[in-house]
Amino acid sequence: MKGLLNKNPVLAGLFLLFFSGSLLATPLASWNEGASKNAIMEFVRKVTTPGGADYVDPAARVAVFDNDGTLWGEYPVYFQVFFIIDRIKQLAPENPEWKTREPFASVLKGDLKTALAGGEKALLEMVAATHAGMTTDEFDALVSDWITTARHPTTQRPFTEMVYQPMLELLDYLRENGFKTFIVSGGGVAFMRPWAESVYGIPPEQVVGSRIKTEFQMRDGQPVILRKGEIDFIDDKAGKPIGIHVGIGRRPIMAFGNSDGDLQMLQWTTAGNSGGFAAIIHHTDGEREAAYDRESHIGRLDKALDEAKERAWTLVDMKKDWKVIHPPKP
Amino acid sequence: MKGLLNKNPVLAGLFLLFFSGSLLATPLASWNEGASKNAIMEFVRKVTTPGGADYVDPAARVAVFDNDGTLWGEYPVYFQVFFIIDRIKQLAPENPEWKTREPFASVLKGDLKTALAGGEKALLEMVAATHAGMTTDEFDALVSDWITTARHPTTQRPFTEMVYQPMLELLDYLRENGFKTFIVSGGGVAFMRPWAESVYGIPPEQVVGSRIKTEFQMRDGQPVILRKGEIDFIDDKAGKPIGIHVGIGRRPIMAFGNSDGDLQMLQWTTAGNSGGFAAIIHHTDGEREAAYDRESHIGRLDKALDEAKERAWTLVDMKKDWKVIHPPKP
Repeated sequence: MKGLLNKNPVLAGLFLLFFSGSLLATPLASWNEGASKNAIMEFVRKVTTPGGADYVDPAARVAVFDNDGTLWGEYPVYFQVFFIIDRIKQLAPENPEWKTREPFASVLKGDLKTALAGGEKALLEMVAATHAGMTTDEFDALVSDWITTARHPTTQRPFTEMVYQPMLELLDYLRENGFKTFIVSGGGVAFMRPWAESVYGIPPEQVVGSRIKTEFQMRDGQPVILRKGEIDFIDDKAGKPIGIHVGIGRRPIMAFGNSDGDLQMLQWTTAGNSGGFAAIIHHTDGEREAAYDRESHIGRLDKALDEAKERAWTLVDMKKDWKVIHPPKP
Repeated sequence: MKGLLNKNPVLAGLFLLFFSGSLLATPLASWNEGASKNAIMEFVRKVTTPGGADYVDPAARVAVFDNDGTLWGEYPVYFQVFFIIDRIKQLAPENPEWKTREPFASVLKGDLKTALAGGEKALLEMVAATHAGMTTDEFDALVSDWITTARHPTTQRPFTEMVYQPMLELLDYLRENGFKTFIVSGGGVAFMRPWAESVYGIPPEQVVGSRIKTEFQMRDGQPVILRKGEIDFIDDKAGKPIGIHVGIGRRPIMAFGNSDGDLQMLQWTTAGNSGGFAAIIHHTDGEREAAYDRESHIGRLDKALDEAKERAWTLVDMKKDWKVIHPPKP
């Protein structure tokens, strides 16, 4: 065989093409064999087998994914918070009063813990100060710039490389099986859309998230959409099924989350006789990533962990189920 | 040739297949030759020509369509009003006080004009009484039942046959050219989604519209989404670019409307150097459909008509440009 290939470069090329293609196409290559991988593949087989009792038309193959802690990391804090911090530092010269005004003063001193101790009120104040007061196009550009230059504080990798390799493979696998993949995240929809397509293959129209109010205006004869400093919708907890209802308009048949913020989305996906599939990514790998659940200040997984066990949802154990966590460095 | 085909049934079959296929594939067959058809086809040629200066990546080929008066009729009144009327009649026995309470009393007497004279307040009251107080699944079922049985008052055809044949062909033509087609309508999103996929080939997740508030609840251990009697969002006028921003997340490159309610959507699509295409369906055919514009109580087309002329948007003249209005009876 080897001799034949050496003598026939066309055949050798075809051979390479075929085998590299096959390797690429191995579904869920970064998932270890086990219950989680089996459950996912068995569900997909079931809903894609024509004539089978559980067959689902491709149009209805909707899969929804939480983002923070499910598709990319959220440790030591939601990545959007780093965007907020960088924006506050950038805007500080124009806002000298921030030096003595919380939560901005603490952010500028590098004391994130005190800044975030102000709870939701402090966070919303920071969102309003950093995410509003510009047009949608201007905000798009800010996020697009930031995402290419910012680095994760401990790994020093771009945040777009802090995604989970097994989940990237899962997105591909589902799409190859006729699924439409959506993000349904508590994070800002306008923060995710500029990069979700290149990083996850998920186009803007398939991203559902939290949002601030916006307003259409004519400015010098040109229409703009202005971002205002007021929350319009929080796509978290009981907001997630609402976000799905408004933004997608049909019940997903698969849902992936990692925290109590995803509980209602998982309930909605598996309600009644829907036959839907729910999975929770359990952060169990303190060595390769982070280990946290019931007591965590980010991505708390408590009620949803109980319900996952009661209802036999798939519990993905990052340590046991994933061969690698992040994609290799490019 | 004829002799050959007669003698060779396989060849004859292939011949038929090829030519019937070609006929079906004739784009915009119900559009007369002229400026409107040319403008549409020239724009599509331009954005789909690889390497051309105006080439647009398929992912960004977003086309948005108003519904009432653009994809289906709106004469003598928005079709969703007939749904409201039928619901009021159906619910009247449970609401005896409606006999003497406006706007319900007038609806029950068949006096739509007086009922609608109450303006937006009366309409919202009717929407709350007929569109809320049930789960999203229950409302879906109500609409799905109604749409198959209700008939247009003058043509006696199902409302789903009161769609515009040339626009159905346009939707197909754009999709064949890699476009994603969206509805962006002032009508209720939950009223359109149950039938938009079978009638227009537009899936629920590509329908943007007005909506009432909804709430996630657990009911007997099962999650439901409840429809509440309060407006959440009106997808009309300056609301349309907001609906597009929130629901689609990128600027369309083509937009079709028919009234002043669509003006801002057309402005947004053609803003600045976007190179976007805007068209207005002008109801000019009093014989085959209805003729109305500046003075109409439905689908008023006044400011947008002026702006279309100033900005050289495509003005589709239903009487001149369309060979037929509605699809043939099945």
